[in-house]
Amino acid sequence: MRNMKIDFGLVAKLFGTPTYVYDAFTIRERIGVVRKVFKGFDFTILFALKANNNPVLLRLMADMDVGADVVSPGELVASHRAGMRPVLWNGNGKTEEQKCFFLEQGFDLLSIDSIEELEMWQDTAIPRLLRVNPNVDARTHPHISTGLKHHKFGVDIEELEKVAEKIDGLHVHIGSQVTSVEPYEAAYSRLVRACREFGLHTLDLGGGWGIDYNGEYLDTDKMREMTSRVFSRFDGKLLIEPGRFITGPAGFLLAKVLRVKKGEKTFIVTDAGMNDLIRPALYNAHHRIRILEPAGPAVSCDVVGPLCETGDKLAADRILELPTAGSLLVVEDAGAYGFSMASNYNSMPLPAEVIWDDSGPVLIRKRQTIEDMYSNVIGP
Amino acid sequence: MRNMKIDFGLVAKLFGTPTYVYDAFTIRERIGVVRKVFKGFDFTILFALKANNNPVLLRLMADMDVGADVVSPGELVASHRAGMRPVLWNGNGKTEEQKCFFLEQGFDLLSIDSIEELEMWQDTAIPRLLRVNPNVDARTHPHISTGLKHHKFGVDIEELEKVAEKIDGLHVHIGSQVTSVEPYEAAYSRLVRACREFGLHTLDLGGGWGIDYNGEYLDTDKMREMTSRVFSRFDGKLLIEPGRFITGPAGFLLAKVLRVKKGEKTFIVTDAGMNDLIRPALYNAHHRIRILEPAGPAVSCDVVGPLCETGDKLAADRILELPTAGSLLVVEDAGAYGFSMASNYNSMPLPAEVIWDDSGPVLIRKRQTIEDMYSNVIGP
Repeated sequence: MRNMKIDFGLVAKLFGTPTYVYDAFTIRERIGVVRKVFKGFDFTILFALKANNNPVLLRLMADMDVGADVVSPGELVASHRAGMRPVLWNGNGKTEEQKCFFLEQGFDLLSIDSIEELEMWQDTAIPRLLRVNPNVDARTHPHISTGLKHHKFGVDIEELEKVAEKIDGLHVHIGSQVTSVEPYEAAYSRLVRACREFGLHTLDLGGGWGIDYNGEYLDTDKMREMTSRVFSRFDGKLLIEPGRFITGPAGFLLAKVLRVKKGEKTFIVTDAGMNDLIRPALYNAHHRIRILEPAGPAVSCDVVGPLCETGDKLAADRILELPTAGSLLVVEDAGAYGFSMASNYNSMPLPAEVIWDDSGPVLIRKRQTIEDMYSNVIGP
Repeated sequence: MRNMKIDFGLVAKLFGTPTYVYDAFTIRERIGVVRKVFKGFDFTILFALKANNNPVLLRLMADMDVGADVVSPGELVASHRAGMRPVLWNGNGKTEEQKCFFLEQGFDLLSIDSIEELEMWQDTAIPRLLRVNPNVDARTHPHISTGLKHHKFGVDIEELEKVAEKIDGLHVHIGSQVTSVEPYEAAYSRLVRACREFGLHTLDLGGGWGIDYNGEYLDTDKMREMTSRVFSRFDGKLLIEPGRFITGPAGFLLAKVLRVKKGEKTFIVTDAGMNDLIRPALYNAHHRIRILEPAGPAVSCDVVGPLCETGDKLAADRILELPTAGSLLVVEDAGAYGFSMASNYNSMPLPAEVIWDDSGPVLIRKRQTIEDMYSNVIGP
């Protein structure tokens, strides 16, 4: 289990581009980091499948005793395929049909999003955690910040008293890509106090740990220091729901340069676009670009996809050594919210997924075909 | 061919939710409006498949002699299934593999995006239009504005002289959801002058006509007046590439209300989310919401999806009469860039598509299943 250098040229040769490539070593290493932060406490890691649902990656996690945080029947199926336990069902839009499906397929823990939802679960024995909104500002992108009162998730912490006896624990998730410890400390401290007050012994801490897209990230040593302090006063079981933190830095979007277009501005046009990775367009997210075979001087340029849309950008105003047409580049830290948010925009098939483990590259999701894309059409 | 009122309740009962519903009458009507704007000129409508690629809708257009503007092999396949002619291949990321595929499958017209790309097509007899960048500000969302010099599309108009003898016509597209005639007039006038100067007799005007999402839209009477004037000095064939203008107002995203969540803020939670319709999250786009069975007083609220993400909004701060759980609502003007940008985010299967024609509702794309979603996985 050592860090093998990924041979992206080999991956491209074997499986084409665009392709998501995951480094198994990094996934295992990141799970280790999470463990270190909570060492000494009674805790379980539940991987948030919304970051990545590839069953092969999930199986690798299950083999390390990682459970699942799922939000839909589709994610439940993937978690079962991978053999993940326990499985927690999370989300603010659970339906009666989904409830039947989940009960039939089996799961272990529930996060209840609203007082209204509590009624839906009166007849089941599955442990219930109530998602509370601690009214803490996670200071992240507004789309992925979730802990403020005006957000759609969870119950105001002041309302806890009314329902404390109907629940088995609490759940909090303040947002995604959080890079400072302080909002966590504020939220966790409130939740620990609430658990003590109402005699609750299960506390789901959510996820959201910020990764190093561009120099800013959550300091896990500081997290360790904080958790030691805050949870010394907590008697019970902790759950942690990392997603991006585990697979984000382990994933790369491998693309081929189609052409370098020079004009008023320089564009590197690749065969990967916002259909494959929407984060730059959707969140104005920064992903580092690695030119694998630089051939020209470093200049300021945009890295764009092949789609007919100006928003189809992977990176803007970067200083990069120019590649030539036909060479490769990778978009880094693309292992979370990459494939899982990919679309068929511009009628582009979904990319392939490959894992790189000790034994080299293995295809874990075939590239979608055009026939696949239209397989559900009823018509000409 | 009269305007039938769509029975959304029936559609939900027959095909479930979330479902895209298209009104055939509106599609035909909108094609008629485009025709009126160019009446008297030699013109062809090429529907931009990136707005919507459902082959049944495309067939309906083909039956009205509408051709296709395609940007990928996937779109070419859909245009052929529907029998659309002529087919124009557009885009800034054409590859050699795609070239082979297109030549094999057959197509009629080319839009060339760069001087570099011209070389790729020296050996073919397919008429070549050069996309020029007229440096006109379309004054629309930065993601979908395309006609400025710093955008990735087209060749600066000043460079035309160098390559005029290698091409058969010009192509311009200044952006999407453009709501004023002036930028069109500026761009078209420049292009007509250039055609006269270089003896070119085919002019592709692109699309981008803004629709009435929220009160502002392109005035087609003014467009008619403008085209009569500008093209009176043009001798040749016009091509027009509407996408959104034709299918946008014809499409509805039908969703079920899962619950109404009251707190500091009121949320209507539906079973349709940003996975089904990403425009509100991606472009901050406004779509009108129609509550089909209002049951409470009108209050300010957000309409949100079931996904675990704050950005999962269909509408923000709307005054709506509150529905009850289990009732229906529709998101209007969702027939363009709706299904075509849908994803499996949160492992949600793609929605169904239904057409409403004289004979009532017909399923034209089955809802994706969970099995479909994982069908390309190689692993557990």
